[in-house]
Amino acid sequence: MDELARLERRLGYRFRERAYLVRALTHRSAAAANNERLEFLGDAVLGMVVADFLFRSDVGYSEGDLTRLRASLVNRETLADVAQALEIGDVLRLGPGELKSGGFRRRSVLANALESIIGAIYLDGGIEAAAKFIHASFGQLFASLPDPSTLKDPKTRLQELLQERGLGLPEYETLSVSGPAHRQVFKVACRIPALELEARAEGASRRGAEQAAAQRLLEEIGHGS
Amino acid sequence: MDELARLERRLGYRFRERAYLVRALTHRSAAAANNERLEFLGDAVLGMVVADFLFRSDVGYSEGDLTRLRASLVNRETLADVAQALEIGDVLRLGPGELKSGGFRRRSVLANALESIIGAIYLDGGIEAAAKFIHASFGQLFASLPDPSTLKDPKTRLQELLQERGLGLPEYETLSVSGPAHRQVFKVACRIPALELEARAEGASRRGAEQAAAQRLLEEIGHGS
Repeated sequence: MDELARLERRLGYRFRERAYLVRALTHRSAAAANNERLEFLGDAVLGMVVADFLFRSDVGYSEGDLTRLRASLVNRETLADVAQALEIGDVLRLGPGELKSGGFRRRSVLANALESIIGAIYLDGGIEAAAKFIHASFGQLFASLPDPSTLKDPKTRLQELLQERGLGLPEYETLSVSGPAHRQVFKVACRIPALELEARAEGASRRGAEQAAAQRLLEEIGHGS
Repeated sequence: MDELARLERRLGYRFRERAYLVRALTHRSAAAANNERLEFLGDAVLGMVVADFLFRSDVGYSEGDLTRLRASLVNRETLADVAQALEIGDVLRLGPGELKSGGFRRRSVLANALESIIGAIYLDGGIEAAAKFIHASFGQLFASLPDPSTLKDPKTRLQELLQERGLGLPEYETLSVSGPAHRQVFKVACRIPALELEARAEGASRRGAEQAAAQRLLEEIGHGS
């Protein structure tokens, strides 16, 4: 059995057109006919399959939860982890320079190759085949979805925490706004009067600065994550 | 014929479960059971269908072209245009406040509702039905794909234009960097010495500011788009 057949076995998918798989494994350092376009396609397929999965999960995620959760499930880190588990690095086609510098171990190269493989499976076998592969290879990540409450933004979490404990509401004050109109910097303070705590933060929007300040206070009272 | 049946006719899609359509038309100001989650799903479906279409087009786009082209074809503006053409505003379910303030005409509300409708068609009829709707409603946009060269970033375009004309290279100078370390503002100048032209711009990164300055010079010499 050749190395591509072994990879297909690990992927749980057998290509009708193996040229798709070869293309997906070809880094841009190796050939002009490389996997960059497949990566674009695979990224979109992965995004949709994960959106579909999260949408149908019965945890009752809000739109904000869904967006945050997808970003936490599917990112360069998790893609590289899955690619490593599938031992994709061993069969990558790299140019001489990348080979010497150990490109087959670089996590970004691995993550991109995995997205390319998803694109290749989609082209070869359609959306069902791609979804099946994604569910199988990301299955463990999907199996332990976090509670929506841990995905809430810092301001909401801080407010709920204080209310639970009967400590009143956090207070926000805008300390200064500086910079040109289209590039303002907001400096705000977030206070918990009952605990005599205060944190300050800056941001490109008032809301962003308030979220950052709330996050700092959450960390201070030991609820940072 | 009721207004939903008329909308279905405009959409070119008849729902098996009309509850999906009603949900897609329900703004968050009108009900807790609103279209926000469907919007998340529809956005992902739209992204994939457009990625698939662009990937298969034989124009030979690079990955960078594909990414830029998708962003130029599918954004809040084009979504709102398509929503207006489909007269979605007339059938939106809005809360009293939004109704009074003319929310049915707000382009962001319309764009979101269109994404939600895409999500609803996907749930009701699968990816083929959603893709068919997207191709029909975005068809005119898809029909006139731009030449890849027009998709290059402003710095690249400016440089290529000047070289073609034997006018040398553009020069960039960083005039100032201000603001706190994590929120710096870069002010740069872009110059074409041979034409004695200069444009200035600001940005959150040096590269961003340079791109903006290059874009201004492109506009000045009549190659802004």
